Amino acid sequence: MFYHSGKLQYEVRVDTPDPVFAKHLQQAIGGVEGEIRVAMQYFFQAMGARGDAKYRDMLMMTATEELSHIEFLGHAVALNLQEAPLTAQEAAATDPVVGAIMGGINPRHILSSGLSAMPVNANGIPFDMSHVYATGNLAADMMANAMAEGSGRVLASRLYNMTDDKGMKDMLSFLIARDTMHQQQWLAVIEELGGMAASLPIPNSTPESSEASEHSYYFLNTSLDAPTPQGRWTDGPSLDGRSTFSARDKAEPMGQKPDLGRARTMSGAQTEQM
Amino acid sequence: MFYHSGKLQYEVRVDTPDPVFAKHLQQAIGGVEGEIRVAMQYFFQAMGARGDAKYRDMLMMTATEELSHIEFLGHAVALNLQEAPLTAQEAAATDPVVGAIMGGINPRHILSSGLSAMPVNANGIPFDMSHVYATGNLAADMMANAMAEGSGRVLASRLYNMTDDKGMKDMLSFLIARDTMHQQQWLAVIEELGGMAASLPIPNSTPESSEASEHSYYFLNTSLDAPTPQGRWTDGPSLDGRSTFSARDKAEPMGQKPDLGRARTMSGAQTEQM
Amino acid sequence: MFYHSGKLQYEVRVDTPDPVFAKHLQQAIGGVEGEIRVAMQYFFQAMGARGDAKYRDMLMMTATEELSHIEFLGHAVALNLQEAPLTAQEAAATDPVVGAIMGGINPRHILSSGLSAMPVNANGIPFDMSHVYATGNLAADMMANAMAEGSGRVLASRLYNMTDDKGMKDMLSFLIARDTMHQQQWLAVIEELGGMAASLPIPNSTPESSEASEHSYYFLNTSLDAPTPQGRWTDGPSLDGRSTFSARDKAEPMGQKPDLGRARTMSGAQTEQM
Amino acid sequence: MFYHSGKLQYEVRVDTPDPVFAKHLQQAIGGVEGEIRVAMQYFFQAMGARGDAKYRDMLMMTATEELSHIEFLGHAVALNLQEAPLTAQEAAATDPVVGAIMGGINPRHILSSGLSAMPVNANGIPFDMSHVYATGNLAADMMANAMAEGSGRVLASRLYNMTDDKGMKDMLSFLIARDTMHQQQWLAVIEELGGMAASLPIPNSTPESSEASEHSYYFLNTSLDAPTPQGRWTDGPSLDGRSTFSARDKAEPMGQKPDLGRARTMSGAQTEQM
Amino acid sequence: MFYHSGKLQYEVRVDTPDPVFAKHLQQAIGGVEGEIRVAMQYFFQAMGARGDAKYRDMLMMTATEELSHIEFLGHAVALNLQEAPLTAQEAAATDPVVGAIMGGINPRHILSSGLSAMPVNANGIPFDMSHVYATGNLAADMMANAMAEGSGRVLASRLYNMTDDKGMKDMLSFLIARDTMHQQQWLAVIEELGGMAASLPIPNSTPESSEASEHSYYFLNTSLDAPTPQGRWTDGPSLDGRSTFSARDKAEPMGQKPDLGRARTMSGAQTEQM
Amino acid sequence: MFYHSGKLQYEVRVDTPDPVFAKHLQQAIGGVEGEIRVAMQYFFQAMGARGDAKYRDMLMMTATEELSHIEFLGHAVALNLQEAPLTAQEAAATDPVVGAIMGGINPRHILSSGLSAMPVNANGIPFDMSHVYATGNLAADMMANAMAEGSGRVLASRLYNMTDDKGMKDMLSFLIARDTMHQQQWLAVIEELGGMAASLPIPNSTPESSEASEHSYYFLNTSLDAPTPQGRWTDGPSLDGRSTFSARDKAEPMGQKPDLGRARTMSGAQTEQM
Repeated sequence: MFYHSGKLQYEVRVDTPDPVFAKHLQQAIGGVEGEIRVAMQYFFQAMGARGDAKYRDMLMMTATEELSHIEFLGHAVALNLQEAPLTAQEAAATDPVVGAIMGGINPRHILSSGLSAMPVNANGIPFDMSHVYATGNLAADMMANAMAEGSGRVLASRLYNMTDDKGMKDMLSFLIARDTMHQQQWLAVIEELGGMAASLPIPNSTPESSEASEHSYYFLNTSLDAPTPQGRWTDGPSLDGRSTFSARDKAEPMGQKPDLGRARTMSGAQTEQM
Repeated sequence: MFYHSGKLQYEVRVDTPDPVFAKHLQQAIGGVEGEIRVAMQYFFQAMGARGDAKYRDMLMMTATEELSHIEFLGHAVALNLQEAPLTAQEAAATDPVVGAIMGGINPRHILSSGLSAMPVNANGIPFDMSHVYATGNLAADMMANAMAEGSGRVLASRLYNMTDDKGMKDMLSFLIARDTMHQQQWLAVIEELGGMAASLPIPNSTPESSEASEHSYYFLNTSLDAPTPQGRWTDGPSLDGRSTFSARDKAEPMGQKPDLGRARTMSGAQTEQM
Repeated sequence: MFYHSGKLQYEVRVDTPDPVFAKHLQQAIGGVEGEIRVAMQYFFQAMGARGDAKYRDMLMMTATEELSHIEFLGHAVALNLQEAPLTAQEAAATDPVVGAIMGGINPRHILSSGLSAMPVNANGIPFDMSHVYATGNLAADMMANAMAEGSGRVLASRLYNMTDDKGMKDMLSFLIARDTMHQQQWLAVIEELGGMAASLPIPNSTPESSEASEHSYYFLNTSLDAPTPQGRWTDGPSLDGRSTFSARDKAEPMGQKPDLGRARTMSGAQTEQM
Repeated sequence: MFYHSGKLQYEVRVDTPDPVFAKHLQQAIGGVEGEIRVAMQYFFQAMGARGDAKYRDMLMMTATEELSHIEFLGHAVALNLQEAPLTAQEAAATDPVVGAIMGGINPRHILSSGLSAMPVNANGIPFDMSHVYATGNLAADMMANAMAEGSGRVLASRLYNMTDDKGMKDMLSFLIARDTMHQQQWLAVIEELGGMAASLPIPNSTPESSEASEHSYYFLNTSLDAPTPQGRWTDGPSLDGRSTFSARDKAEPMGQKPDLGRARTMSGAQTEQM
Repeated sequence: MFYHSGKLQYEVRVDTPDPVFAKHLQQAIGGVEGEIRVAMQYFFQAMGARGDAKYRDMLMMTATEELSHIEFLGHAVALNLQEAPLTAQEAAATDPVVGAIMGGINPRHILSSGLSAMPVNANGIPFDMSHVYATGNLAADMMANAMAEGSGRVLASRLYNMTDDKGMKDMLSFLIARDTMHQQQWLAVIEELGGMAASLPIPNSTPESSEASEHSYYFLNTSLDAPTPQGRWTDGPSLDGRSTFSARDKAEPMGQKPDLGRARTMSGAQTEQM
Repeated sequence: MFYHSGKLQYEVRVDTPDPVFAKHLQQAIGGVEGEIRVAMQYFFQAMGARGDAKYRDMLMMTATEELSHIEFLGHAVALNLQEAPLTAQEAAATDPVVGAIMGGINPRHILSSGLSAMPVNANGIPFDMSHVYATGNLAADMMANAMAEGSGRVLASRLYNMTDDKGMKDMLSFLIARDTMHQQQWLAVIEELGGMAASLPIPNSTPESSEASEHSYYFLNTSLDAPTPQGRWTDGPSLDGRSTFSARDKAEPMGQKPDLGRARTMSGAQTEQM
């Protein structure tokens, strides 16, 4: 069950409201790299967690923290919109800076939300929950989470660069910090489970009889003219410790030429196909 | 530039066509765990690759392989649909097995595609390209790729379990094998770049001055009644080697109570809000 | 800032796991009538609330309660899936009941989530945040909330009818009860603001000079052959107390025949259009 | 069956074409607050109407009117686009006003539609029909309709403020007027059915035995530190006349700590979860 | 401006209600091959029509007819749902036919719409307006329309095959007939404009100087092992009468190897990419 | 099976990087008129092709070519973004041209992709695979393909007009040329199958007994006040050679007034509807 405190997790100050930056900040709320995504992802993973209960707790605790991130980011968006132009007169100033602002804002921040945050990204596209990855496999989920936090910290760093507002930089430096923790936190679970070697290949419960293992450890060069890129993936022990990497420098088809024959009558095809 | 050979990468046999399994297989084509996603993800990452060119080549080569996976899976779907009922007479058999089939197929396999594969998932939902993660950050992209292959191998394993058809099991065992390679291949890039310690936190190019590092290494317990789950993430050196993990057993707000004041006139709010 | 308790808001018991009912329950989580929608809608309205702070608090408190509803519904879905068939052998039983189950389940509950709840509706379609209505106008938002709770209680009532499981009926009776409170709670705000008469038309801050008020109070019959349906909307004082309802029994165009002339050169039209 | 007249329902004049305002106007066509939504919502509600036939007629008549609103708005968008820049030369004027225009237009108005209206919102996002609320419950549908018209009038008022064009202001004043009527028209149905008291809770046909009515009339304070907001919803008779409002100042979990146990073999989880 | 008559364009009879067929019929309402699509497509094309006004009129008249198709199809769906099971008792009959029905229906027909049509396809996916093709180019639009009607008639034919209900077969035979007319009607416009030769390539207004015409008339064989398929497209005059078809039996790259160099600092890439 | 060459199909040069044009170019990659669409459409049509195998080969070869188009367009987008502003300092230049650029770029090109192409359109909306039309009917598919190439050439022509960059104009002139070929190539298949007369109505395999042919050849005037537009579609032999076109100058309903009666108990309707 959830509870709420009236105060924000972190202080939000906006020294110079900037409605274009409000649009950009939306990516951190409703973008695929944003906070709605991780809040919901950890929440659904927690609800489906099977096995050691401590991972469930950990997921739910961080899901709860991410809800608080949505909250202070939402406040930051609203503060940046406080003085956005609401009328043709306000918007029509000949000042080129205002002109650029009008071109660069999300018009729905005026037309639809009334100067408030929306659950959308920087293009105004609503977040959709297909981005909530929760497989029921702990290692797959931990990778998904580390990935989400990695792309989240990339985004927060770019937002940090795109503003000169001291309040916003301070808030984003907190977000960058928490993303630092969170991306490592999920990888630490894998380390605790014995590390990558023990966890790979995901799922590590697939019986070996289900796998055509003669195809499991070679890099396939599908290029007609480029040499096989040499690296850790073409040489040395595989990361799961079960085999050795190699390369096939020239890919060859192993299957048949597909042929579906003629169409059945009553199938809605043209007569010539039947 | 792309080329094509008329033969499939891997042999596709369907001993007993099963239109319900055709619906399930669609998840491996158009699901978020499927092949369109990885083909397009690696393709777009390759197009945006900056830095050492060998990673670009590697991404493009595997993108090309994934296109071939779409192709043989698409053939498998069509073969499973070859004998699906096309008329009320065929569908109305009182045999309960037929009844279950009619209940369980994707009707659009009959109505829309004419017994062929579609770029949709097992619920019939078309794949959308928002799932193509390509950040311009090599490490973030490698994590995204390992994640995609992890969830892909989970899916392929479950599909393997859900069929008794020998041809399908053989094809899926190949898919499981390639997913084994691919998930390790992307992680091998990270190992080559110095391993996790050197790569974290992603992006490793964010200046330390952008980060409120006093918040970067503690796990935050946001629960009112559960103890902090102890583990690798609460103790020992952080995975980036820059600090030490700890825990805050009780989360406290650090920010203000948000207050947006009254609504501006002309903002479309109710008079009582102004 | 958000917090969490390890216990559910309400007890969840499933006497007879039913994976088809798990699919149906998803509508209450990820459907437009479901709990993710109201949780997020109240959350975003709270973040954008201007005017009397007590409405902000009220919105945030109920948003928090709705998060708890997602949580116990998610647990209910997982419990209903506990014994769903995972292999062809389990699924292929000739028992027609099993056949119907296989036809009726969401295959992604097996293939994608590993027997857990997903943020999707009963058709497997992920919730998208475009359904979070938050206009910045208090009365419009209260109507949106009452509507959401109305459709939510319709849904919960139908789900209640569709199950015989005592545990599920008990849980749903709680949901029906809370929907009773919530739909009235939002309408009570309107009553507190002076009632419908004072609140209408929404927004009540639009200056009368912005409105062609000669068109504001007649019902328009656009039918060629049906008489004007008589009712409260064709007679008596308007609900906003500003005028009297009437009807126009025959609609007439008041505008011009539209004409865009010929296409400009360089516009990509056919030559014949230019 | 539908018919059409060649003239518009209302006159459309554009004194000064403005391609940025064309983008904004799209919200009134293809936004969630727009005319496609209400046209389709009333149409589908009419098709599903059961009970007194006059509500079906009323819904269909207003659906028909809303189609006419799409039509004149579509003409307004096209007229605003008549002189939009089609070539690099036209667009590259150094005039900052032109620069802002180029930044602020929807490029698909040039690239995709050839200077015409599209069924999209102000962010260019196509309308999707998930926003057509039609529950089969008359009162729920009337609330949904009043809500749609409320947010529609908020939008029209904001658009009115955002333009200085006399023709556009005139057209929008008509739209504001019709939204005034429509939002009251749907609420008048509820009044006719005995008013809110008789209609609530929606659906009023749910047997009392389906409801855990001890939870039906208290406001739940889920905050850790904010007092219960006092108001009409915490005191006095409930709006359905069946009970009395009260408040629970401190929320307590009533359910268990969720536990799904260990994962089943063959479920695709990690071995450590089994 | 639109008007409505209370009667349907065509008689709808359902002799034996079939809720599974109701689900299938939805494809003709809300599918990409369905009536919402063509109604809206012709409507938006009409609103953007430039050039000879008769095409605008023609588009609007047929748009209006398609709205009437939605209406009688919607009634057909509701009639097929009239007796669908609403309770666990009704649904739990051990009759395998009922079992198949329960597996095969769209649960939202019960849970969300209350036994009425929805603006969704046979998978329950809401129609989205991105499928409304309206380019501002008359010939491109006519092709889009002929295509839509072609796929519509394929769908109607398949639905005709999938039912034994005489009333439904009668209604679908009318739909098949109108699709026959409509697909030819749009192609007749092209014939009137001088036929394909005069209309191609679309747009025929593109100056020849914009085209690298040495690449305009050869078929490109991109296969490594399949011979060039010979046909009308490799030989004889081009359909636009401007040149002669030929083939390039072996595709060769004409461009450079792409290289984006190293990442810029402050771009959020990994240090190793810079 | 697919292969790749390291070189692009066509040379890409960008003389003056322009991040706004990068946004526009995205329409040609991820728009409905773009290259992902045709690549996937031809690919899925090929996988489902039944009948003469040469059409399958032809489809797969051109699908492969379209993948190469995505590739060079993706490179063009990245080159146009090479110098886009990454920091507030770079973006805040008072130069109005820079202001317009900041207003007009897609912020996700900076925030999400790190100056690279994305699988989205010019509004930043990800491509979704519902636009892949593949019906299993050869003629319907050929029409869909000709339509896609027609709208694609319209788009490429408009993009050509919107840039002054010589390199971009050269690349687009190649795209225009290939679209010229492709739109004719698909129509040439229809010509080879006997031409339009033999192919229409699509599907030509629908038995005449399935069609109410008395309704197959008249144009229906649904207007109340506009005369029937006269043209090839109202007079002369039908394009399928089976009948003669005519017109019904006044549309009349042929069906009943719809009536669903009262709602069933337990259906979730209001009591007043039952």
